[in-house]
Amino acid sequence: MQNFTFYNPTRILFGAGRIADIAKELPTNARVLITYGGGSILKNGTLDEVKAALKDVTVYEFSGIEPNPTYETLMQAVELARRERIDFLLAVGGGSVLDGTKFLAAAIPFSGDPWDILAKRAKVSSALPFGCVLTLSATGSEMNNGAVITKRASDDKLAFAHRLLFPRFSVLDPTKTYTLPPRQVANGVVDTFVHITEQYLTFPVDAKVQDRFAEGLLLTLIEDGPKALQEPQNYDVRANLMWTATLALNGLIGAGVPNDWATHMLGHELTALHGLDHAQTLAIILPAMLQVRREEKRAKLLQYAERVWGLNAADDDARIDLAIEHTRLFFESLGVPTRLSAYGIGKEAIPALLSQLERHGMVALGEQGSFTLEGSRKVFERAE
Amino acid sequence: MQNFTFYNPTRILFGAGRIADIAKELPTNARVLITYGGGSILKNGTLDEVKAALKDVTVYEFSGIEPNPTYETLMQAVELARRERIDFLLAVGGGSVLDGTKFLAAAIPFSGDPWDILAKRAKVSSALPFGCVLTLSATGSEMNNGAVITKRASDDKLAFAHRLLFPRFSVLDPTKTYTLPPRQVANGVVDTFVHITEQYLTFPVDAKVQDRFAEGLLLTLIEDGPKALQEPQNYDVRANLMWTATLALNGLIGAGVPNDWATHMLGHELTALHGLDHAQTLAIILPAMLQVRREEKRAKLLQYAERVWGLNAADDDARIDLAIEHTRLFFESLGVPTRLSAYGIGKEAIPALLSQLERHGMVALGEQGSFTLEGSRKVFERAE
Repeated sequence: MQNFTFYNPTRILFGAGRIADIAKELPTNARVLITYGGGSILKNGTLDEVKAALKDVTVYEFSGIEPNPTYETLMQAVELARRERIDFLLAVGGGSVLDGTKFLAAAIPFSGDPWDILAKRAKVSSALPFGCVLTLSATGSEMNNGAVITKRASDDKLAFAHRLLFPRFSVLDPTKTYTLPPRQVANGVVDTFVHITEQYLTFPVDAKVQDRFAEGLLLTLIEDGPKALQEPQNYDVRANLMWTATLALNGLIGAGVPNDWATHMLGHELTALHGLDHAQTLAIILPAMLQVRREEKRAKLLQYAERVWGLNAADDDARIDLAIEHTRLFFESLGVPTRLSAYGIGKEAIPALLSQLERHGMVALGEQGSFTLEGSRKVFERAE
Repeated sequence: MQNFTFYNPTRILFGAGRIADIAKELPTNARVLITYGGGSILKNGTLDEVKAALKDVTVYEFSGIEPNPTYETLMQAVELARRERIDFLLAVGGGSVLDGTKFLAAAIPFSGDPWDILAKRAKVSSALPFGCVLTLSATGSEMNNGAVITKRASDDKLAFAHRLLFPRFSVLDPTKTYTLPPRQVANGVVDTFVHITEQYLTFPVDAKVQDRFAEGLLLTLIEDGPKALQEPQNYDVRANLMWTATLALNGLIGAGVPNDWATHMLGHELTALHGLDHAQTLAIILPAMLQVRREEKRAKLLQYAERVWGLNAADDDARIDLAIEHTRLFFESLGVPTRLSAYGIGKEAIPALLSQLERHGMVALGEQGSFTLEGSRKVFERAE
């Protein structure tokens, strides 16, 4: 096992009806800004439920935080929050609203241009406290301190993380995910799956607990992912997926083990150039990535084949092939295509994707730092 | 899945050499009281290592915290800490030193008789911050907010927990456990094992992640427990056991699922009346408990048989018998006997044990609250 530091102070309020408990989590006399995206929380009653829970609290609202939240939109919220002396933020939504709210938490008390927090790693020495009511299970942002923000003006998409940016609390009420469109549910399962494999399918360091936990999360996705599409109001299924998504990226399974994240880096360029959903890009890249890097990942792929897919083929290479094929078919079974061609993207798109990777410095990726542009080319070709 | 709240703000500094990092975790100009037990940390160099890490910090020491730490001993430390205006505590040891230090953290700023914190549930509104350097892996106290304290004068042994009593940080350096006597290593494995089964072997609530995590921790103990005795300086083995013990009782696997803890309650009386090690009592009680309550726990016992012990006997009852027998033999293989007779305790001891349970109100135990004194009698008889 590698040395690690683990710290995660977010309080999780899990279960149906827990929105009713949020007032107790706020500071006395808080001035709260509720942040959200489009209209879904208006339509499905979640916003009303939140406001009812905060009926004795001073509350403002900021809506319109978009998927891949932008600096331009968020700066309007910064202005509003400063003007109204907001001292607590409450994100109601999925990963984008949460990520946007993390940026607000850092930007509101920041004295310079808040974009410098991302672009120049400007020092953040204070942040507004914030909580969250999660309505979409996927990114894990509800129990970590990271966020990704886009600047529309320059098409930059930058990530940041800070010790002050853990949510104070996150309400995880599985019933709030009942009304999600199937595509978002399927995307959430794929996104969670690949969060796990990025931390698990690397090379062995005899970290038995982390391996077992990662495998347990993957098995839960495999068992309950398809059910979530078949039975949208099955409470336990939604609960298991919600808790799995949170634990997949709260620091626990990645502590003390090598981390990869190359699949995400290649996927980001597909989203940037072709507008695919994040999860779609991961479903395309992961199977090809595992094939191209099968020697480097051999030991863990064999473990994955046996423990996650129950494969016992005598021949090791056959077992690895089968495990990768099972992975691909699992994504397909959720309705998420795993080939570039299925999204109308052909071979001719590859050079531009590689240029983007190069421009962003993504030339030495993976758990060993040895995955180069040549590897990326092979992965895109295999994913055709 | 049941509703739950999960909160755990302890920072874990895991790995060889992490003691060097503790100064950074202290408040500026802290006046630190190092608390410890007997002389083992003097002999094996751990205390020197801690002092070297704190060479620029004002440090006092309090030694002599005993196994099953007592109010009487701890009140001497309260006096010292108040006199020297200590504002940070650093526990260096195992669960007893940690539990004692948690009591100190609450008692030092407390204005009345600190025993009332335990005996009368007196309100604790502040606590000294504290950290920990763990030298024995078993109780999980390094990442939770609970403690058990004994009052020698009245032979009371009381438990308490408080939201302010999570360690600020815990150093988990596996090499610090290399010099432990085999009996303590074996006890640690058994203690951890039963912490897990108390939260896992109940009744199913379709909490897939909690089940998989519990099974993963049990499998790690089964794989690495015996190795820890055979190869005391195998780093990865000690690391896996240390992280397993912490995760077994930090709130994670017990969140959202029924909890039992009856085995612990019966075990406590065996320690009180016969002086057995805590883990010895658990090794005696658990197999008998599972036999006596096999119908109530049937579904989870079958899952345990299959997933933890890999048992596929066609007959369900045979599979349950085998799983319980495997459990018993696992404890025996670690050198921890599983029968009362092996400790010289006969049938005639049972009435007194039952009286103790009755006196302590332990008459409706278990995940259903339906395990009565009659059940306890059967368990003690089966464990003969």
